[in-house]
Amino acid sequence: MELSRRIEDELAAAMERVDAGSGPPALAAAMRHALFPGGARVRPRLCLAVALACGDRNPAAATAMAAAIEMMHCASLVHDDLPCFDDADIRRGRPSVHSAYGQPLAVLAGDGLIVLAVEQLALRTAATPALVAPLITTLTRGVGMPEGIVAGQGWESEPDPPLARYHEQKTGALFIAATAGGALAAGGDPEAWIAVGARLGLAYQVADDLLDAVSDAASAGKPCAQDGAHHRPSAVGRLGVSGAVARLRGLVGEAVAAIPDCPGAGMLRELVKAQAVRLVPAALADVAAA
Amino acid sequence: MELSRRIEDELAAAMERVDAGSGPPALAAAMRHALFPGGARVRPRLCLAVALACGDRNPAAATAMAAAIEMMHCASLVHDDLPCFDDADIRRGRPSVHSAYGQPLAVLAGDGLIVLAVEQLALRTAATPALVAPLITTLTRGVGMPEGIVAGQGWESEPDPPLARYHEQKTGALFIAATAGGALAAGGDPEAWIAVGARLGLAYQVADDLLDAVSDAASAGKPCAQDGAHHRPSAVGRLGVSGAVARLRGLVGEAVAAIPDCPGAGMLRELVKAQAVRLVPAALADVAAA
Repeated sequence: MELSRRIEDELAAAMERVDAGSGPPALAAAMRHALFPGGARVRPRLCLAVALACGDRNPAAATAMAAAIEMMHCASLVHDDLPCFDDADIRRGRPSVHSAYGQPLAVLAGDGLIVLAVEQLALRTAATPALVAPLITTLTRGVGMPEGIVAGQGWESEPDPPLARYHEQKTGALFIAATAGGALAAGGDPEAWIAVGARLGLAYQVADDLLDAVSDAASAGKPCAQDGAHHRPSAVGRLGVSGAVARLRGLVGEAVAAIPDCPGAGMLRELVKAQAVRLVPAALADVAAA
Repeated sequence: MELSRRIEDELAAAMERVDAGSGPPALAAAMRHALFPGGARVRPRLCLAVALACGDRNPAAATAMAAAIEMMHCASLVHDDLPCFDDADIRRGRPSVHSAYGQPLAVLAGDGLIVLAVEQLALRTAATPALVAPLITTLTRGVGMPEGIVAGQGWESEPDPPLARYHEQKTGALFIAATAGGALAAGGDPEAWIAVGARLGLAYQVADDLLDAVSDAASAGKPCAQDGAHHRPSAVGRLGVSGAVARLRGLVGEAVAAIPDCPGAGMLRELVKAQAVRLVPAALADVAAA
């Protein structure tokens, strides 16, 4: 609960700055629509959990990093849903941003969220100047070219995308920003946390592929069977359902094993295991339990 | 010449980092297409000219800020050219990014350039930590919501956009980032330079409206008469051609008068006046000389 409150309050504060300014109201509303109500807030919760495990020495910086990561994630969803990509009318059980506000404001809402993420992070860390550049470059590496989620999405326009790299960039990179950034904000060693983020990101991507393959739109809150429809590389397509479930379990085990020694290592290992159970779609509970 | 070299080298260095990574090659090519060859590089030249006028105490920071501003400008052009906005097939006399690479890579190229701008600025200023947050927030204020170029573009989706605020945000905001950021990088007072950037931004917008209204596509290197076609607010539509020319000259005079005392104030005043002459489209030289 504490983690959720820190994340939601920080996101709300960022949007309050937007609303208090003299910008166009429909664009502000489109940005708000993209941020609230949120999904599972998996990445910012992971970022804060790592910061706590490392001693949470700069709570304001950790919270700002967590919120910035979530804003980047929401921005990527807005752009990925556009007609020229997934053409998804539904997101989190509601109209996607372009369905509700039109394509121009969806493009701009994504742009605005990317910029807001950076700005809020810089504002919140200005009082600890040594942290600003390391946190911002940790964030941008997870988002941009050549190795972040923008790069990952770009592979969908290539004729023969390398599956591992595609998943590392499209999903793993922002999970790495979450673990490395949480450690950095708390005064820990970000390098030691890269492997944890990388494994959890890949696990999450496999879980998403499974969800896409076996769930229906009503329970997922978004269009399903999109990977096949868009000819996207997918772990399920490559490994089959039971192979993908085994891969998911293996990746979570590797992530847990990679958690470095730190004050809260034991707590974090339990948390990751508990969260991982929820990643497997309900329809696959039997396969997962086997 | 020296200013141009600093800008082009910095932009090239940023793109070299992108090319050296493991991202999708077509997206890297689309980003390069958006950056090179450039237009007049008006904003980064202004940023460096202000830094020089203020003593250019941190040349690396000033150059990074100038290049970051140009990357943000190029990103905005890529997104503004998309079919859902201006639907412009031509930019700088060549195919626009979406014409050459398709809409998905154009959306991602814009996103990638926004992130690259911030990342390059943070990397280059990491050695002067006190400058990082002020420069980044000066940049983001000029780009994002609620008062930057993204906000300005957002007004085009509102039923009755306020003309002055639309122009302040769509064009003025990034010029303010250029003057305030150049001063900040050089150890000057950014507040003292806001009025100069604001006036020059408005002057440039009026010049662009004039160009749009009276030039043909061949000499402008992009589609013209777009303001009328898209029902956008325009200074020419509101003031007529000769009224807009008078407004342009008044704004340049105000900008020159607003230049604060600094080691290179005299040089900068002459430079702004010389540049301003070029802003008036050739077809209007007689009106401007009147």
